[in-house]
Amino acid sequence: MKLLIINPNISESVTALIEKEARLAAAPGTEITMLTAPMGVAYIETRFEAMIAAYAVAELAAEHAHRHDAVILAAFGDPGLEGLREALDIPVLGMTESALMSACMLGKRFSIIAISRRITAWYRDMVERNGLDGRLASIRCLDEPLRDIGSVQDDHAARLQALCEAAVQEDGADVLIIAGAPLAGLARSIKHQLPVPAVDGVSSAVNHAQSLVSLAPAPARVGSFAKPPRKDFKNLPPGLTRLFGQLP
Amino acid sequence: MKLLIINPNISESVTALIEKEARLAAAPGTEITMLTAPMGVAYIETRFEAMIAAYAVAELAAEHAHRHDAVILAAFGDPGLEGLREALDIPVLGMTESALMSACMLGKRFSIIAISRRITAWYRDMVERNGLDGRLASIRCLDEPLRDIGSVQDDHAARLQALCEAAVQEDGADVLIIAGAPLAGLARSIKHQLPVPAVDGVSSAVNHAQSLVSLAPAPARVGSFAKPPRKDFKNLPPGLTRLFGQLP
Amino acid sequence: MKLLIINPNISESVTALIEKEARLAAAPGTEITMLTAPMGVAYIETRFEAMIAAYAVAELAAEHAHRHDAVILAAFGDPGLEGLREALDIPVLGMTESALMSACMLGKRFSIIAISRRITAWYRDMVERNGLDGRLASIRCLDEPLRDIGSVQDDHAARLQALCEAAVQEDGADVLIIAGAPLAGLARSIKHQLPVPAVDGVSSAVNHAQSLVSLAPAPARVGSFAKPPRKDFKNLPPGLTRLFGQLP
Amino acid sequence: MKLLIINPNISESVTALIEKEARLAAAPGTEITMLTAPMGVAYIETRFEAMIAAYAVAELAAEHAHRHDAVILAAFGDPGLEGLREALDIPVLGMTESALMSACMLGKRFSIIAISRRITAWYRDMVERNGLDGRLASIRCLDEPLRDIGSVQDDHAARLQALCEAAVQEDGADVLIIAGAPLAGLARSIKHQLPVPAVDGVSSAVNHAQSLVSLAPAPARVGSFAKPPRKDFKNLPPGLTRLFGQLP
Amino acid sequence: MKLLIINPNISESVTALIEKEARLAAAPGTEITMLTAPMGVAYIETRFEAMIAAYAVAELAAEHAHRHDAVILAAFGDPGLEGLREALDIPVLGMTESALMSACMLGKRFSIIAISRRITAWYRDMVERNGLDGRLASIRCLDEPLRDIGSVQDDHAARLQALCEAAVQEDGADVLIIAGAPLAGLARSIKHQLPVPAVDGVSSAVNHAQSLVSLAPAPARVGSFAKPPRKDFKNLPPGLTRLFGQLP
Amino acid sequence: MKLLIINPNISESVTALIEKEARLAAAPGTEITMLTAPMGVAYIETRFEAMIAAYAVAELAAEHAHRHDAVILAAFGDPGLEGLREALDIPVLGMTESALMSACMLGKRFSIIAISRRITAWYRDMVERNGLDGRLASIRCLDEPLRDIGSVQDDHAARLQALCEAAVQEDGADVLIIAGAPLAGLARSIKHQLPVPAVDGVSSAVNHAQSLVSLAPAPARVGSFAKPPRKDFKNLPPGLTRLFGQLP
Repeated sequence: MKLLIINPNISESVTALIEKEARLAAAPGTEITMLTAPMGVAYIETRFEAMIAAYAVAELAAEHAHRHDAVILAAFGDPGLEGLREALDIPVLGMTESALMSACMLGKRFSIIAISRRITAWYRDMVERNGLDGRLASIRCLDEPLRDIGSVQDDHAARLQALCEAAVQEDGADVLIIAGAPLAGLARSIKHQLPVPAVDGVSSAVNHAQSLVSLAPAPARVGSFAKPPRKDFKNLPPGLTRLFGQLP
Repeated sequence: MKLLIINPNISESVTALIEKEARLAAAPGTEITMLTAPMGVAYIETRFEAMIAAYAVAELAAEHAHRHDAVILAAFGDPGLEGLREALDIPVLGMTESALMSACMLGKRFSIIAISRRITAWYRDMVERNGLDGRLASIRCLDEPLRDIGSVQDDHAARLQALCEAAVQEDGADVLIIAGAPLAGLARSIKHQLPVPAVDGVSSAVNHAQSLVSLAPAPARVGSFAKPPRKDFKNLPPGLTRLFGQLP
Repeated sequence: MKLLIINPNISESVTALIEKEARLAAAPGTEITMLTAPMGVAYIETRFEAMIAAYAVAELAAEHAHRHDAVILAAFGDPGLEGLREALDIPVLGMTESALMSACMLGKRFSIIAISRRITAWYRDMVERNGLDGRLASIRCLDEPLRDIGSVQDDHAARLQALCEAAVQEDGADVLIIAGAPLAGLARSIKHQLPVPAVDGVSSAVNHAQSLVSLAPAPARVGSFAKPPRKDFKNLPPGLTRLFGQLP
Repeated sequence: MKLLIINPNISESVTALIEKEARLAAAPGTEITMLTAPMGVAYIETRFEAMIAAYAVAELAAEHAHRHDAVILAAFGDPGLEGLREALDIPVLGMTESALMSACMLGKRFSIIAISRRITAWYRDMVERNGLDGRLASIRCLDEPLRDIGSVQDDHAARLQALCEAAVQEDGADVLIIAGAPLAGLARSIKHQLPVPAVDGVSSAVNHAQSLVSLAPAPARVGSFAKPPRKDFKNLPPGLTRLFGQLP
Repeated sequence: MKLLIINPNISESVTALIEKEARLAAAPGTEITMLTAPMGVAYIETRFEAMIAAYAVAELAAEHAHRHDAVILAAFGDPGLEGLREALDIPVLGMTESALMSACMLGKRFSIIAISRRITAWYRDMVERNGLDGRLASIRCLDEPLRDIGSVQDDHAARLQALCEAAVQEDGADVLIIAGAPLAGLARSIKHQLPVPAVDGVSSAVNHAQSLVSLAPAPARVGSFAKPPRKDFKNLPPGLTRLFGQLP
Repeated sequence: MKLLIINPNISESVTALIEKEARLAAAPGTEITMLTAPMGVAYIETRFEAMIAAYAVAELAAEHAHRHDAVILAAFGDPGLEGLREALDIPVLGMTESALMSACMLGKRFSIIAISRRITAWYRDMVERNGLDGRLASIRCLDEPLRDIGSVQDDHAARLQALCEAAVQEDGADVLIIAGAPLAGLARSIKHQLPVPAVDGVSSAVNHAQSLVSLAPAPARVGSFAKPPRKDFKNLPPGLTRLFGQLP
C-alpha cells in the first residue's frame, strides 16, 4: 500500500515531524511518500493561508496521486480535503477529520489542543464542517509567539500538558486531540501522563487511510463526490491541466 | 491482534454471516473470536429488544474481553456500546458507529439501508446519539415481512439495490450504509453495481478496531469514560460480578 | 389510579426517600406500589450501570405492570424508559423526562443540580436525547465522595443550595432541576430559599403520570412505539418471557 | 383549584368548544372560568393576528388572574405565553406547549394536524421556540376555506383523519397533536380510529395546570422570569395599569 | 425615499438618540419620520413589555406606513417585526435583525453588549429566532441600575468599553453588536477604540432599509408572509381597523 | 464609492451578465470595476473548482483591492470569501451570503433555485457555513445539460419559473433566491410573475457593499478576522507576494 502524504506548509522541518510519526504509525507493508508544498507559508493559522495552501496541495495531488493508493493532507484544518475528494478516485484523508473520527470512537466529547490563539477559529470551523460541534468540549491553545515551528513540542511541553489537564478537568473532555502538524507525535510521547486518551492527527490519518484502502469502496460515479463534469478551463498548472483534461 | 466479536442476537446464522465478512476484512495477523448472545431475540428491531441485548452483551464482554485486544458489538444500533466503553480498558466498537465513521471519510451526506420499517426509528436514534443527524440524507428500508433473517440478502437483492439507487437519486446521499448484521457483506458483493461508495458495518468495525489497537491510546483514568467508581452491588451474573469486583 | 414506581437501584433507603416524596405528591385517589431492583448497584452514576439497571427494571415492569395504570422509573437518567414505552400499553414515565417537562413549563432555560461529577455526563446525554440541550443552562454537581447515599441531602445541604444559587446567578437558569433519586424531596423543602422555581423528578413524575392516565391516549398500534413484532427469543426471565410470549 | 381559561379569539362558539373539553378533562375539584377576548379576530392564523391577541390576553389576564390558581391561554400558538409567565406569579400555560409536553411523554417524534395552510408557519415557529424542532415529524393541514370555525371538526372529519393517517404512515409520527382551539375535543372522539396516541391542547393544558398547581413551585424572584422591574409607563388599560403599578 | 422609524418605547429622549444616529446614517435623498409609542413603558427589558410594545407599534404602523417606503422598529428585540412584515406591503426592519445581518457580513461570531442583565434573555431569544445562535459568542451586559435611560452612554462609557474588550478577548467575538436604542450611536463614536468592528442597530437598519427599497422585491402574495386572510374582527383601534378592513 | 467585482469564473459572457445587473443595482455615485478570473473553469459547480477559483480570486483581489472601497466575489458559493475578509481591510462580500442576508430580512424560510443538480451540494454547504440551514426550505435545480452558460436564463425560462412555484407551493418558501452568476438579473425580470419576493445575489451584494462602506466599521485588529500574522512565505504570485510582505 502506497500513501502520499502532503505537507501543505513550506516547512521542511514540519515535514520531518510528520514523516517520523507517520512511519511509526504505518503497518509493515505500507510505503510512504512525503511531499512539501513548494509555495505558501511556513505554517497555516488562518482561513486565508489555508485557501492558498489548498491550491498548492491540489496541484501536488494532481501530479502525484495516480501512483498511490491514498492521499493524506497533513495539516490540521484539512485544506482542500473535500475538493480533492471529488477530483481523485482514491481515498483522500485530512488530519482534522481523521483525528475527529478516532476521538469519536474513544469517547463522547473531545477537546482540541492548538499551537496558537489565531488558529483556533479555523479549527472550530472545521469541527462545524464535520457536523460535530455538538461534541466539542473546548479548544485550548498556547498563547505566546512561537520561537520555531519545528520545536514547539519541546519549547512548550509543560504548557501543552497543562492545557490537556485543564480541558479534562474544567471542560469535561473525554478525549484530547493534540492538533496541528507541528505537534505530530506528541500524543504518543505524553499519553501516559494524560488523564484521558489522546489522539494524533498524523497517526490517525495513516491508520484510517489503511482502513479505507482495505475496505476498497467503489468511487462515486454520481452525486456530489463524483468527478466534476468536464467543462472549459484555462491557464492551470501541469498537474491540474492533466486532471481536468481527463475528466469524463 | 485478537478481536472479540459479539453477536447480540441469538441467531447463529447471523453470527456466521458476520464471521464471514469479518474474516474477509481482517488483516493477516488478526485473530477473531465469535460469540453469540445466549439470551435475547432472533434479531433486534426495537429499543426494547436492544435494551435486553445490551445486558446479554455486557455479561459476555465481562467474561471474555480480558483475553482480547478489542471488542466489536456486531449489531447495528450498537447495544451497550457506550456503557462497555466505560467498563473495559480495551477499545469497544459498534457496527453503527464504525459505519458512520467510514461514511464520513468518504462523503458528506449518507443514507442508511435497513431491513425493516420498524428498525429505522432505532437507527435514527443512533445517528442522533453520534451527533451526525445533520449529515443523514435518509433512511430507506425493506417493508415486507422477512422469511428468514439469515437469507435476507438473497431474498431481497433487487429491492435492496433499488433502495440504494433511490437514496442516491432522490435523497442526495454521497455514501450508502448497508445496515444491520443480516446484511453483512452485501456492500462488498454489490459495490460495483452502486452509484456511490457503500459501507458495511462489520468490515468497518474490524478495520477501525485494528486502527484503535494500533494507535494504542491510554485508557481514560478520569472523566465520563473512566471505569465506574466502586460501589455496592448484588445478584449480578459471574462475568459482571468479577468486573464490578475489580473496580478501583 | 395505581402507579408502579420502580427504583432501579438496589438501595432500600433510596426507595424510602422516593416513596415519601411520591406520597406527598400523589392525588387523593392515587395508590402507589414501590419496587426496588433486586440486582444491580447501590446508585447509578454511569452509562454502564444504567445499562444493567435497565434490564433489571424491564423484568420488574414485565412482571408487575399489568396490575397498574402507569409505571414510573425512579432514577434520574430514566434507564429503560424508551424501551419499556414500546413494550407496555400503559404510560411509562421517567424522572429526568418528567422533570424536564415541568421545567419547560416554568421557564426557558434550566440547570440541573447533581450528586456527583461522574453522573453529569449521563445527565447531559439524557437532556440531549430529549432534544432539549438548547435549553440547558448548566449542570452543576457535588464534587466530594458521598458518605451515605441515603443521607446526601442532609450531609450536603449548604453546598447543594450554593450550587443552586450559582446556576441562577452565573449560568442564567430560569428553573432548577434537583436531580437524582437520593435528592427526592429536596426541592420541596428548600424551595422558599431559592431564587427561581425548583423542580423535583419524583413529584413531577407522579403528577405527569396522573395526567397521562387521565388523558387516556390510545396505545400506539403502528410506528416506533407500537409493541415489538413477535419473533424467536430464548432464556429470558419469567416476566420478560411472558411479555415476549404475548406479543401480537 | 381555580383555572382561568382565556380564548384569545373573539369567537364565542370556539370558547364553547374549549369549555366543553376543559370540563371533561378537569379533576373533580377543579373550577373553570372562561373568558373570550373582547377585541381581535375570529381565529388566529398569522403572526400578526397573534401579536394583537397577545395584547388582548394580557389585559384580561391582568384583570382576572389574581382570583385564580393558574391561567391557560387557549389558542394554539400560545399568544403572550412567555410574557405573561414573567408578569404573573401563578402558572401560565398554553395549548401548544402543553400539547408538546404531553406528546414528548408518549413518543419520540410527533406530527401536528392543523386547520389551514396559513397557520402552519406559525405552528412551526412555536415548535422551534420550544426547542423541539428536532422531534417534529411533520405539520399537515386542511387546505380548503373553512365554512364555519365552530364546526370544522364535523365539516372535515374524514379529511382530518386522513391527515392523521398520512402523518403516521408517511412522516413517521409516533404521536399526533390535533392542534387549534377549533379542534378541541377531536382527539378524544377519534382516538380509537387512530394508529398512534393523539394529544389535545385543551385537555393537556388543564392536566398540566393541575400538575403545576399541585407541585406549587415558588415563583421566580430573579432571572428572566422574575417580574419586570418597575419603570415609567403610560396609557395602559386598567388591568395592565394595575399590574405595572404593583411591580416591586 | 421615506423611512418611518418607530420607537416602541415611550421615551422621547431615546427617540432623539435614535433620530440623531438615523440621520447620520441615511443617504442624501432619504427622508425620515420619527414616531414614539404613545403607550407602554420607558424602555423594554422583558418579553412582557415587548408584547405590549408590539401592539402599540402595530397601531402606529397601521396608521402611518402607507405614506412611507419602509418601516423601522427602533427597539432592540424587534417587537412586532414578523407580524408587521405579514401585514404591510413595504419592507419592515428591526434593530436586532439588522444588526445581526451587518455583523454576519463582517465576521463569523458576534457578541452583543446590552444595557441590563434582565434584557439579555430577550436578546438571546431574538438571536435564536433569527436562527443564528450558532454564531453568538456571548452577550455581555451592564449590571447596575440605570440612572437615566437617555444618558446611559455617557454614564457608563468606560464599563461599556470594558465589556467590548472582554467579549473579544475572552469570548472570541469577531464583531461587536452594541445593542439597544439607548446606545444608538455609541458604535460610531467609539469604533476606533475597539479591537474589532462594531455594529449599531439604528444605522444598520437605515442602511438595510435603503437596500431593500432599492432592491424593490415584489410583496408576498402567498405563503406565511402574505397578508392575513380576511376574517371577522372587532374593537380594534383606528389604524388596525382600517388595515384589517382592507385585507383581500 | 468604488466597488471591485470579481467573476471567479473565466467566462466573459457571465461577467457581462453580472456587470449589467450590478450597474442597475448601484446607487448614482457608485463606480464599478469588473474583473474576470484569468485561470480556472467556465463555471463553478463543485467544491474542487471552487477551491481553484478561490486562489485565482485571491491573487486578483490582492492586486486590485487597494484602489477600491469594497470587493464583491461574484460567484454563488463565495469562493475565498472568509479568507479574503481576513486579508483585506475593506469589506468583502459574496453573492451567497448577500442573498441570504436579503432573504432573511424578507421572510423566515427561503429556497434556492440553481442551474444544475451538481451545484446544489455546494450551495447547501454554503448555507450551513452561514449557520442558516434551519431556515432553508429547499434547493431546487435545473436538471439538464446547459447548452450555453451565458444564455441559461433564456434557454430555461419556463422551467426556472416552475421551480420557483414548486419551492413556494410544496416546500413552503417565504422567499426565493435565484442563485448563480449565470442567473444574474433574472429575479428582477420575473419578480412580478412570482408568488413571493425573489432575491438576486449580484444586486444584493452591490447594495450590501454600499451599506458596509457607508457604515464604515473599523477593521479587525485582533481576533479571527484580523490580518494574518507575518511569517515566512515563498513562491507566491505578485499580488499575494505584496500582500504577505505588507503584513504587520
